[in-house]
Amino acid sequence: MNIKITGTGSYIPSKIEKNEDFHNHEFLNSDGSSIKAPTEVIVKKFKAITGIAERRYAKNHLTTSDIASFAAEKAIEKANINREELDYIIVAHNYGDVRHDSSQSDTVPSIASRVKHLLQIKNPKCVGYDVLFGCPGWIEGVIQANAFIKAGIAKKCLVIGAETLSRIIDPHDRDSMIYSDGAGAVVLETTDDEGGIITHDSATFALDEAHFIYFGETNNPEIKEDRRYIKMYGRKIYEFALTNVPMAMKSCLDASGYQISDVKKILIHQANEKMDEAIVKRFYELFDQEPPEGIMPMSIGKLGNSSVATVPTLYDIILNGGMENQEINKGDIIIFASVGAGMNINAFIYKQ
Amino acid sequence: MNIKITGTGSYIPSKIEKNEDFHNHEFLNSDGSSIKAPTEVIVKKFKAITGIAERRYAKNHLTTSDIASFAAEKAIEKANINREELDYIIVAHNYGDVRHDSSQSDTVPSIASRVKHLLQIKNPKCVGYDVLFGCPGWIEGVIQANAFIKAGIAKKCLVIGAETLSRIIDPHDRDSMIYSDGAGAVVLETTDDEGGIITHDSATFALDEAHFIYFGETNNPEIKEDRRYIKMYGRKIYEFALTNVPMAMKSCLDASGYQISDVKKILIHQANEKMDEAIVKRFYELFDQEPPEGIMPMSIGKLGNSSVATVPTLYDIILNGGMENQEINKGDIIIFASVGAGMNINAFIYKQ
Repeated sequence: MNIKITGTGSYIPSKIEKNEDFHNHEFLNSDGSSIKAPTEVIVKKFKAITGIAERRYAKNHLTTSDIASFAAEKAIEKANINREELDYIIVAHNYGDVRHDSSQSDTVPSIASRVKHLLQIKNPKCVGYDVLFGCPGWIEGVIQANAFIKAGIAKKCLVIGAETLSRIIDPHDRDSMIYSDGAGAVVLETTDDEGGIITHDSATFALDEAHFIYFGETNNPEIKEDRRYIKMYGRKIYEFALTNVPMAMKSCLDASGYQISDVKKILIHQANEKMDEAIVKRFYELFDQEPPEGIMPMSIGKLGNSSVATVPTLYDIILNGGMENQEINKGDIIIFASVGAGMNINAFIYKQ
Repeated sequence: MNIKITGTGSYIPSKIEKNEDFHNHEFLNSDGSSIKAPTEVIVKKFKAITGIAERRYAKNHLTTSDIASFAAEKAIEKANINREELDYIIVAHNYGDVRHDSSQSDTVPSIASRVKHLLQIKNPKCVGYDVLFGCPGWIEGVIQANAFIKAGIAKKCLVIGAETLSRIIDPHDRDSMIYSDGAGAVVLETTDDEGGIITHDSATFALDEAHFIYFGETNNPEIKEDRRYIKMYGRKIYEFALTNVPMAMKSCLDASGYQISDVKKILIHQANEKMDEAIVKRFYELFDQEPPEGIMPMSIGKLGNSSVATVPTLYDIILNGGMENQEINKGDIIIFASVGAGMNINAFIYKQ
């Protein structure tokens, strides 16, 4: 018995926020001091580092649970299963439902319960819960679903990553340009088909790293409000990721029995283009190799960083032929990998 | 190989909020209309239904992750394990860390990462994540840990339920008197010892029931603020629980192979005394029996409803001889059960 992804779906919000849309922002340093460069220059530099030219924001009337359900509908349809047969709905997110006009996270009921409600699934034995694990939450959800199937308590699981980071960004912080909204979903189930999840690995670095991504005040000291936003120590994260992610990917690949030459794709969390490129470069260095052309498809340029949603969305886009010069074929060995708040790192090796 | 709880711990906040402390509250109906009774009478009636005389609130400087770590420290100590050997830290909660002077839930990094940081655990292979599953979250965490152990990806797991509901209550809502703060934790591990988790069952009812517990505005229409609080449709929940929880408990017990006469204790989520009594009465009716004296220890009178924390806290108190005329002995068959936001129901049968 193998455990495979039999359906994928994603929801890419229609509202496009271009880099130019930030030209009228007043960006400040985290200590409140002004940045010695015109905003256009800041934005241009941002683009050079992150690769992000535009990102997507959910329309005002939509929440994380709404867009999660849109992606889920597509995944269920693609898997061609009866939704009432799902044993689990696992939703990875970070901030719950945040209405566009609110600063509060709404997490009760769980997003999974809301999604189940929106999908109109009746079967009470379809258990819905949320997992909070930073950006690697969707991969962790897949790993948990895999464990439930192996433990004999599930056969079919829906695993969703959905986030509306546009609702929790500080407009005075350059990093606000990184974040995006989106949702991706997969159906994972037992199959007699060859392939599926081969090995997986997860880690939490919380001794010195727990607060590298945190909830902090606006960079603008003139704004007196009791409101916090997503914040990060970018340099520390970069160094942390470069030190730890390649090793984690290697240990996962080594355990799978496959060779580096077998790897056809690396689907990595779309955090930051330069960082992702450096991670994959260093990963190949561990095998004394250079990354092959096109090994790491990137969606960040057009879609930004939608946290838990980037990896399943990227996978769905490629499977649907939506990315030039990128394809995934039966039998391909794929590395799924992520890094994010926690700090958490995870990966799984998958045979298509 | 069996999977048993080898250590328990709880943290009961020192700040006691008595029913009399609510006498100066102006309680209103959910439509904003005034309640035709003096507050003292409302409070007395509340006591008669819920059994709650007082509840505990965390001190202002403490958050959910702080109190979670206090309970965890005790559980680790009791289990007498090296904390670096933990494979998972699973934290069930609902609202993340809410500072006493804030309306925002802080969920990034996850509470599990914060707890791991506070416990100063170095091993990155100790994976920390949060599970959101309403009040039954702690039991669900135990079920997940059990699955990870069975799937061969864990041997020792720390499962915590922690919540500071005092931070998200509407002072104009009678139901605000129900809620409390607290934390309970267990270490779950493989053992050659007899007993442990025998069977378990979970369910999510989200078709009509998803929003029985929800995030809503204050009952006071004069307060113009963009802030939401925990809210519930008490009557609907009562009827739902009475219809579904006894059946779920029975199906779990039946699957275990044990008889109703084997059951020595029922540790049920401390939601509401009258409701819990009615559930257990109906559960025994399914076997044409009356509940035996003392079968269902209750802590709600003194501790209120601390959501995910009630069950592990109750278990810890009894094991430590902290409840009069209550004890749990080796070999005892115990039903752990919960119901809450989602609406979720779960249970597991445990042999001490």
